[in-house]
Amino acid sequence: MVTVTDLDTPFLAVDREVLESNLSAMAGLAAERGISLRPHAKTHKCLEIARRQLALGAVGLTVATVGEAEVFAAAGCDDLFIAYPVWAAGHRAERLRALAERVSLSVGVDSAEAAELLGKALAGTSARALVELDSGHHRTGVHPAEAGQVAVAAERAGLPVAGLFTFPGHGYGPGNRTPAALDEARTVAVAVAILRGRGIEPAVRSGGSTPTAGVAERELAAAGVVGEGLTELRPGVYAFNDAQQVELGSADWSAVALTAMATVVSRRADTVVLDAGSKTLGADQPGWATGAGRLPDHPDARVVALSEHHATVVFPPDVSPPALGSTVRVAPNHVCNAVNLADELVVTARGQVVDRWLVAARGRNR
Amino acid sequence: MVTVTDLDTPFLAVDREVLESNLSAMAGLAAERGISLRPHAKTHKCLEIARRQLALGAVGLTVATVGEAEVFAAAGCDDLFIAYPVWAAGHRAERLRALAERVSLSVGVDSAEAAELLGKALAGTSARALVELDSGHHRTGVHPAEAGQVAVAAERAGLPVAGLFTFPGHGYGPGNRTPAALDEARTVAVAVAILRGRGIEPAVRSGGSTPTAGVAERELAAAGVVGEGLTELRPGVYAFNDAQQVELGSADWSAVALTAMATVVSRRADTVVLDAGSKTLGADQPGWATGAGRLPDHPDARVVALSEHHATVVFPPDVSPPALGSTVRVAPNHVCNAVNLADELVVTARGQVVDRWLVAARGRNR
Repeated sequence: MVTVTDLDTPFLAVDREVLESNLSAMAGLAAERGISLRPHAKTHKCLEIARRQLALGAVGLTVATVGEAEVFAAAGCDDLFIAYPVWAAGHRAERLRALAERVSLSVGVDSAEAAELLGKALAGTSARALVELDSGHHRTGVHPAEAGQVAVAAERAGLPVAGLFTFPGHGYGPGNRTPAALDEARTVAVAVAILRGRGIEPAVRSGGSTPTAGVAERELAAAGVVGEGLTELRPGVYAFNDAQQVELGSADWSAVALTAMATVVSRRADTVVLDAGSKTLGADQPGWATGAGRLPDHPDARVVALSEHHATVVFPPDVSPPALGSTVRVAPNHVCNAVNLADELVVTARGQVVDRWLVAARGRNR
Repeated sequence: MVTVTDLDTPFLAVDREVLESNLSAMAGLAAERGISLRPHAKTHKCLEIARRQLALGAVGLTVATVGEAEVFAAAGCDDLFIAYPVWAAGHRAERLRALAERVSLSVGVDSAEAAELLGKALAGTSARALVELDSGHHRTGVHPAEAGQVAVAAERAGLPVAGLFTFPGHGYGPGNRTPAALDEARTVAVAVAILRGRGIEPAVRSGGSTPTAGVAERELAAAGVVGEGLTELRPGVYAFNDAQQVELGSADWSAVALTAMATVVSRRADTVVLDAGSKTLGADQPGWATGAGRLPDHPDARVVALSEHHATVVFPPDVSPPALGSTVRVAPNHVCNAVNLADELVVTARGQVVDRWLVAARGRNR
């Protein structure tokens, strides 16, 4: 048996029991809400986890790029949604068409121009579009008032519109989870009415994120949100969770399945330096975060600085920092970016290494 | 011929002429200062660039990890410095020893405990230690007053001390370049005296970073910094430069050799969304940066938000943002993290694709 502290650091370790508990919990939450679960595979990029999600009842996978779709399609996943306003020009158009000939494919669209290209690229296939809505995150997606125009443009371009999707990314902020879920519900309800007014039935209404997925229907009802709700949830991070989810209140430490294993390489007074830096954890640090990651076993410690191969961690005055050479677990702020930096995940059970999973879609970001 | 706009975005493109000009300029600067150049290969992780640096007179390469050292040693680079306080335990000790039996190896050390382990791992090889100094960045490294103790501990452990090194990383801040170079010079001068007092001659005195490398000796002399200067510079970023270097004033746009090629996938009013996000550019954003990267061809635009596959870019009111589907170049904030996300670099000359270079040490971060 290999124990997890026997391996050269830094590397990403996944606690299999916590992972499986997280996967079951979200499958149960979707079932309780009576809606479909289509997990976002950009978080794990890993066939072993996708298979577990599908076995637990997921209707298919969400991906962010054509490259991710290619990896999961090749592995036998036959229902994929590229939740992105794909620009179907050049070689990418050919790749999309090849995908649509192989799997049940949905793609995002947020402009008439993109719809035109998608219509050409996907003509004669069974691919469908979902119109992207901006529900308050102000990234991609149209205001619901414009959803009808985009949907009509898609259908005119020969691309059937299966429905709507949105990402309530503004839920990533302290206290923002419920307001973002309300924005999402209201935006979708308005857009449903608009599409129906144009004679298009949005059978698929896809939303959700890890922070907002747990906002219960009753909170939405209590806030007076009426109309058509979501039919599908697309959370990704929930499989592993991360420091951000803990700081947002959407997970607790016992639900953090992935951590970087790091070694204390330098130590002075109240401060240690670990060998897991931004090339292991990613450099994400939203303004509201307490640092550049967290130490689940030392919740009062703060990661005050991160360079490529260094995490500088300050401990409270009454705590003796871990010794030189000791192994410390670090939860990245944003697990999706950490996973995309790793070639493999070291799978553990009770501190023993039980498997290694390839990050099959690592770097497949176009 | 393939033009660079024919490829599916996002990807990293390197302008070969700008790269070669940057490599020559730094080689010239080191020659003018009369000191050695040992470029940090963590920036490019690329054999083709390492070979160019060595051909231009570099005395060897700097690396950050044992894994990077293994890649460059296997490719025939026979003089490597691991500029990191390596903790030589377990399997890592065996890997270090194998390296030291193959190449001329130097390693960093900043504690007696680490020196002890290094001494055991490297006994009987020609490997040498450089004591790491904290010259003001407050990451790893000891105060110069403690350099003697660490050096003596290393020699007692059987590990010869070849000298000192420091990274003036606090030069990464507006107006900080010259003060950080002064701190570096003063710290090294003090530590040289201390080591000599212990009977150890620090023949190698290694420092430098891209922002501080250009701070001229005469500025140091004018500030009254006396004593022994550096014998070696270790800049890395200068090969490519990035948005940070431009905003720090250590490079201008014409010296930015690497950019991400991205497509405009969404557009509204003064804002466009590009398909290069943090999985292409990295998520680095120091507090003093104007955004999450810069557009060299649109210097007044600001990257106001970055998600994994989206860069949200706002243009000034009097500028029409680029059209949907157009290709836009993005300079990452921190090029080292961007390169570590890519499997290959697309090499261009006058807009044509002329080569593809493997990022050979991508992910070799332990």
